[in-house]
Amino acid sequence: MPDPCVSDAGFTESGLLEHGGKLRQAAVRYGIALEDWLDLSTGINPNGWQKALPPLSTWARLPEDDDGLHRAACGYYAAQDLLPVAGSQAAIQALPKLYAHRRVAVLAPSYNEHAHAWQRAGHAVDLVCAAQLHTAIDDHDIVVIVNPNNPTGVCFDVAMLLDWQQRLAARGGCLMVDEAFMDGTPAQSLAAYSDREGLIVLRSLGKFFGLAGARVGFVLAAKKTLLALAQELGPWTISGPARWLATQALEDQAWQRIMRKQLKQQSQRLHTVLSAAQLMPDGGSCLFQSVATPQAAHIHAQLAGQGILTRLFKVPARLRFGLPADEQEWQRLQQALRALNIPSVELSA
Amino acid sequence: MPDPCVSDAGFTESGLLEHGGKLRQAAVRYGIALEDWLDLSTGINPNGWQKALPPLSTWARLPEDDDGLHRAACGYYAAQDLLPVAGSQAAIQALPKLYAHRRVAVLAPSYNEHAHAWQRAGHAVDLVCAAQLHTAIDDHDIVVIVNPNNPTGVCFDVAMLLDWQQRLAARGGCLMVDEAFMDGTPAQSLAAYSDREGLIVLRSLGKFFGLAGARVGFVLAAKKTLLALAQELGPWTISGPARWLATQALEDQAWQRIMRKQLKQQSQRLHTVLSAAQLMPDGGSCLFQSVATPQAAHIHAQLAGQGILTRLFKVPARLRFGLPADEQEWQRLQQALRALNIPSVELSA
Repeated sequence: MPDPCVSDAGFTESGLLEHGGKLRQAAVRYGIALEDWLDLSTGINPNGWQKALPPLSTWARLPEDDDGLHRAACGYYAAQDLLPVAGSQAAIQALPKLYAHRRVAVLAPSYNEHAHAWQRAGHAVDLVCAAQLHTAIDDHDIVVIVNPNNPTGVCFDVAMLLDWQQRLAARGGCLMVDEAFMDGTPAQSLAAYSDREGLIVLRSLGKFFGLAGARVGFVLAAKKTLLALAQELGPWTISGPARWLATQALEDQAWQRIMRKQLKQQSQRLHTVLSAAQLMPDGGSCLFQSVATPQAAHIHAQLAGQGILTRLFKVPARLRFGLPADEQEWQRLQQALRALNIPSVELSA
Repeated sequence: MPDPCVSDAGFTESGLLEHGGKLRQAAVRYGIALEDWLDLSTGINPNGWQKALPPLSTWARLPEDDDGLHRAACGYYAAQDLLPVAGSQAAIQALPKLYAHRRVAVLAPSYNEHAHAWQRAGHAVDLVCAAQLHTAIDDHDIVVIVNPNNPTGVCFDVAMLLDWQQRLAARGGCLMVDEAFMDGTPAQSLAAYSDREGLIVLRSLGKFFGLAGARVGFVLAAKKTLLALAQELGPWTISGPARWLATQALEDQAWQRIMRKQLKQQSQRLHTVLSAAQLMPDGGSCLFQSVATPQAAHIHAQLAGQGILTRLFKVPARLRFGLPADEQEWQRLQQALRALNIPSVELSA
């Protein structure tokens, strides 16, 4: 049996980690034209914010810090202060470089760039199950979690996290919470507490707002951390048009209200559809459902053969399903699920 | 007299360096509305590539590496291989982190982010005049120049640079050439030689293509260096819409031909206009003219008082003028230059 606390690294040829959304690669591998795929391999809102396009001037001029994005983001997240970054990935890469030789516990399985980045920066990294995190707090300097977790959908309680943050901060440590999938459940966010010492919260416009191509995310933390990170990253990390679009989306409260409701309904529908196909999700967020099954690789391949791309996690074996965009896509998914021929499990010795 | 080899650092409150293009700050300082300024403080083409806008889908999906940008850029630069980065600034920040404890010579005065980044990464940095560079080659590991230089406009000869590169490469060293202002004079570029060991060339779409807001640049170098840099920077560093726009601009050879010719004419006109106002440029590129004068601060303030923003370099004292966008802006500049009241120079003891 694979250790459930160890997830696969999945490196590509270039030494970068594997991710969902690699539709071009799938198109070549399965011989299905790009436009014929239903891509459920990401947790990106398929009906994202698309109400306006940035003016041409935003392409021509260097982006400026005082263009309204900072204020709009502080308002949306209810945060005292934050640093806009080029997607939370930019923060994941850079934050480990602000520290030297720390003992770091990273939730596993979770978004695999976290452990990779801390290891790459020379820290001692332990991968820790959700169930063992509460004991890891006291013998690590930095604890990194994803909440709700990706790909498992596990959620962590606010009061428990604030207790962890306090215990870490008392020793000069830090709790880092990646809230990439939090927008559907803002009451569960630590954003409002992010000015406290020993807490760093990562947010992104990639998932809920469906603006993954824009590369806009935010680091919410105490001012000292934000200043150090700003110097590490340097100027103009986000494109001007993306800053403009992000500002509009963050200020569009009406859209956000409707979308939170819609995504909740759709995520529930996905749970129902998968369950009906004997693929019972064991976790999820407003943007995906997650199915732990030893048959994950078989099911992934059979769906890909029908032009439906899901996200396969090999160790531990798990499939993540994003949301279909419209009724036609829902019907296509349901039809493909009915056509599945799942082989019986071979029990290992 | 200030040492002509030492330029001012110009740090802002956040610890980031000062740059041109800070129009919002100037608007507040001089009490002139944002839309009433003529901004000549950058070297950005005021008539940049603006022939199409990226499709909405590029905002929604994660950017993919195999979308055609790499091929378009290799074609435009006549390079064997390259890495697209989020503006050459991203490369300037990251490249020093690929080395440990090198003796680095950085051309001075030049674009001030270079020396800053190498110092920040813990290297021993010497600032070296253009005239002394040829002797600096043999007692440094890494030599960083900007060609044509910014802000002085000094140009370096291809054969001489290739000699420097060979001497550095023979000792395991490296010549880094920032060619941000090279697009008007492609015959002077080292891009075609960038697969050689010990050579790194930086290019950008910010200046000639006028796409400074897009944050797209390229590192041209041997494959080993590109792989190391790709791992340092991580995935998705450029926004999807910017990748799309960059690809179109790099493939638009007709526009590029016309623009090279236009910018050459306009830069010559700027030289003439400044000379007529007793501001004789001592260097320039297709996108700016540069005037070394002890009166730089006075002239900068007087032009700003008339709503014309130029770029002031304090030590050594120098003004950089970008190109006006149209005939109306040319007339406004000429009128403002005629109204200048330049105090006589106070000679220091």
